[in-house]
Amino acid sequence: MADLTPSFWGWGFEERFPDAAAVASLARRVSAALGVDAPAPRPLPRLADAALPEPRAEVPPELAAFCARDREARVRHTYGKSYRDQVRGFAGDFRGAPDLVALPRSEDEVARVLEWASREGVAVIPFGGGTSVTGGVEPDVGPGYRAALSLDVKGLAAVREVDPVSRAARIQAGATGPAIEAGLAPHGLTLRHFPQSFELSTLGGWIATRAGGHFATVTTRIDDLVESVRMWTPRGAFETRRLPASGAGPSPDRLVLGSEGALGVVTEAWVRVQPRPRFVASATVHFDGFLRGAEAVRAIAQSGLHPANCRLLDPGEAFVNAVAADGHAVLLLAFESADHALQPWIERALAIAAEHGASCREGPVLREGEAAPAARDRAVESASWRSAFLAAPYLQSALVSLGIVADTFETACTWDRFPALHEAVTASVSDALQRACGAGAVTCRLTHVYPDGPAPYYTFVAPGRAGAELEAWSAAKRAASEAILAHGGTITHHHAVGRLHAPWYERERPELFARALGAAKAAVDPAWILNPGVLVVRGRDG
Amino acid sequence: MADLTPSFWGWGFEERFPDAAAVASLARRVSAALGVDAPAPRPLPRLADAALPEPRAEVPPELAAFCARDREARVRHTYGKSYRDQVRGFAGDFRGAPDLVALPRSEDEVARVLEWASREGVAVIPFGGGTSVTGGVEPDVGPGYRAALSLDVKGLAAVREVDPVSRAARIQAGATGPAIEAGLAPHGLTLRHFPQSFELSTLGGWIATRAGGHFATVTTRIDDLVESVRMWTPRGAFETRRLPASGAGPSPDRLVLGSEGALGVVTEAWVRVQPRPRFVASATVHFDGFLRGAEAVRAIAQSGLHPANCRLLDPGEAFVNAVAADGHAVLLLAFESADHALQPWIERALAIAAEHGASCREGPVLREGEAAPAARDRAVESASWRSAFLAAPYLQSALVSLGIVADTFETACTWDRFPALHEAVTASVSDALQRACGAGAVTCRLTHVYPDGPAPYYTFVAPGRAGAELEAWSAAKRAASEAILAHGGTITHHHAVGRLHAPWYERERPELFARALGAAKAAVDPAWILNPGVLVVRGRDG
Repeated sequence: MADLTPSFWGWGFEERFPDAAAVASLARRVSAALGVDAPAPRPLPRLADAALPEPRAEVPPELAAFCARDREARVRHTYGKSYRDQVRGFAGDFRGAPDLVALPRSEDEVARVLEWASREGVAVIPFGGGTSVTGGVEPDVGPGYRAALSLDVKGLAAVREVDPVSRAARIQAGATGPAIEAGLAPHGLTLRHFPQSFELSTLGGWIATRAGGHFATVTTRIDDLVESVRMWTPRGAFETRRLPASGAGPSPDRLVLGSEGALGVVTEAWVRVQPRPRFVASATVHFDGFLRGAEAVRAIAQSGLHPANCRLLDPGEAFVNAVAADGHAVLLLAFESADHALQPWIERALAIAAEHGASCREGPVLREGEAAPAARDRAVESASWRSAFLAAPYLQSALVSLGIVADTFETACTWDRFPALHEAVTASVSDALQRACGAGAVTCRLTHVYPDGPAPYYTFVAPGRAGAELEAWSAAKRAASEAILAHGGTITHHHAVGRLHAPWYERERPELFARALGAAKAAVDPAWILNPGVLVVRGRDG
Repeated sequence: MADLTPSFWGWGFEERFPDAAAVASLARRVSAALGVDAPAPRPLPRLADAALPEPRAEVPPELAAFCARDREARVRHTYGKSYRDQVRGFAGDFRGAPDLVALPRSEDEVARVLEWASREGVAVIPFGGGTSVTGGVEPDVGPGYRAALSLDVKGLAAVREVDPVSRAARIQAGATGPAIEAGLAPHGLTLRHFPQSFELSTLGGWIATRAGGHFATVTTRIDDLVESVRMWTPRGAFETRRLPASGAGPSPDRLVLGSEGALGVVTEAWVRVQPRPRFVASATVHFDGFLRGAEAVRAIAQSGLHPANCRLLDPGEAFVNAVAADGHAVLLLAFESADHALQPWIERALAIAAEHGASCREGPVLREGEAAPAARDRAVESASWRSAFLAAPYLQSALVSLGIVADTFETACTWDRFPALHEAVTASVSDALQRACGAGAVTCRLTHVYPDGPAPYYTFVAPGRAGAELEAWSAAKRAASEAILAHGGTITHHHAVGRLHAPWYERERPELFARALGAAKAAVDPAWILNPGVLVVRGRDG
């Protein structure tokens, strides 16, 4: 990716942004779907037009070798990639830019940043791929800090060690998805952690945010792939022992997982890797209705068959992703293995689907052979689904350029509460969009499934009113979050809390956990410099 | 179990203690195995002979309805069931007895105990089944407390709610294994968490100690079965939301799991349950050598087949458990499912074993049918193995009565380190026993296995010298723990830390985690009354 230019306001790389024809086609599709006039594309913003204040701090001599305060570096570290971030970036509004940007090339340099910042009262925001969709990397640190520094760990990006016997690898936190896979490929191994942000996001970011990955069951999130972790705090290194499992007290790894940069800077981790799958069995199953499909998914999730993919799309998602245009909900089902052929697995899963009212199916397709790195997605998902999956964030940016309100959110809940949660979420977001925009569509898919409940993932789109897009989005986001909390969901299954979800996170977690976490933070970050405003509040929680 | 009398010094129930003939037969077997004279049985201790000091506190009026200070209650709450506990109990040494024993019948009564104890500076030791083998329930609380109170939660023992859709149940912390299964059976459900202590230990104890259970892979410990948890702290209730998964910050559940009564008293939890298995496929595989068998187990653990049982016994364990007398290591392999027949699964696992040098096998045996509650173990394990598994703790008590040094310990490590760890542990424990006792035997089995490493479980036996048993045991325990730490293992995979493992736990965990945990404890237990001496040290860690 070294020859591509990251977008300073939108998703991904500038060179991959949809071209004028694609944007026009998108505008027509949105117009048809929402029953509104096709929105007119607006010219893309230029970095030269970005507005940001003068930095509040000089680069200190001890950090001079890897720290900058130039305009471009600051603009590029102002936001993540939430809808709100992109709207502000598109408008050239970078008033919250960090004062300084550090790019350490070693743990020692990370330590020097934390030491200086603790002494000087400067807030430090750990930054990986910059793909947070919850305001996790925005230097909105509240009062009491002299300045804010964005600590970009992309200089720590090596695959340092591979243990083929235990199937584990020691990888630095700044390594992106493609860098990790490239480092493991010569060993015939893969991490197989493919979040939608795969091309840009980093191992450290995945760990800090408990990122969701490729597998629909069992190893659904990076949590399950972390064998040990090394994190640098203002008090020094916090390194856990490489172990397949331990029962020695509460898990130290689990305190790091989800800590969102508030406890320390993850610098590296041992992660569980595996050989590239040789056997794949996949099928597509149609259902008359999303909830009917969800009943089949529940039965499959409770069967102990452990599919790699078990993604249920509602009719709207199926249509958008070009897997069904007939109003059916569609289940994308796949098993994969490096060890054994999978016919009995998929046959049983399809039988369960049939017992639960599947209306028709395509497949199973059974494949065998050494999958080449580039073929990984094709091997487990249809090509149309794959391209839609990776292109979706670009489409969101294109929609932003069209003035369309468009975002996603996700949750998880137990199966008994899912039908009511789904109905309430869909209705309240639709209502909010209708009120704010006069129209709007909400679609849903199940991305990860557990024996005791699904993780539904929602997308909403509405015609924005110029200048009022963020207000409309905010109303929809609030409606979604309130409905989720009221119906027993979590404010996030794998997008993290950041600054965006804080109000609902604070209602969801046990209040005494906030106290415990705040006290733990104060113990490792006594000057309270690390990502202030995320997870815990100084003075209240610790 | 209501009509059985728990032993006040040894394992289990008095009525089930091996009779004189069985003890004599055990003495002969030990004599043959160790090449020493058969030890003479000693008369079992009587509760009336137990020596304990006067209690240091009166029962306060506000706790009078459910709190006692009588001799028997105090004796029965002095120890867990470690070798050291049993030796001291056998000798009638109860000098560390708690001053008071509370048996609350409601959360409100738990709260009243914590409130009174916080005010009065009385240490509170949460007590479930009393089966800790690491000194976790012993009132050895250090200086600074006016008295010590054992808080027995067995009065909170109900299965309160069952959600058959999400397959989860809300169960109180004091429910023992049989009580839980009895409460779930009318719903056709089971928790399937069967630690060796199953008949006596409680859900709350399992959660506090991260207990290991029935399944060799995937859901190996209670951690994986907990959907949400409710814990009472001196600052109030700490209750997590029922969720199949959440990515909202570090997991609050994971702070409770393994907290060993130092953060609060677990009062209830929602746990993941499942239908009783209908299909079982099992086999026994022999290997020329334990490490050769371990290579096959590694391949099976890395195959994605997820066996329910994958227990590798070294030749000594195979002999003792009567599954092989020919010097082979033996793998007990089983798959189980409530959903589907398992022939492809076990056939592939057996093929992997064959590829890795299995010398012969029995099975597979495929069974189908509604398994009755009582048949659960027979359905997945050979009857001889099952009876040995449940009887083993009684045998240890019988060995104590014979003056034999006999204990178990366990760990986990990555596969790359296992051969060296195994050699070092075996050699150093054998050496220690040889030096202290002039003879000794060490055996091993793998109880749980992960893609990145096994959990080995060791047993050692040696002829004690009268009055020097604890010294010999202590030397062996120290040798084992040092070898484990030096070779990359954990001081415990599922026996917890307690007071026994503290010195090694403190070297294994990140030092900054101790600070964070100590600070978290101080936040929820400001008077530092809960199980002092476990996990964190006042003044040093918080």
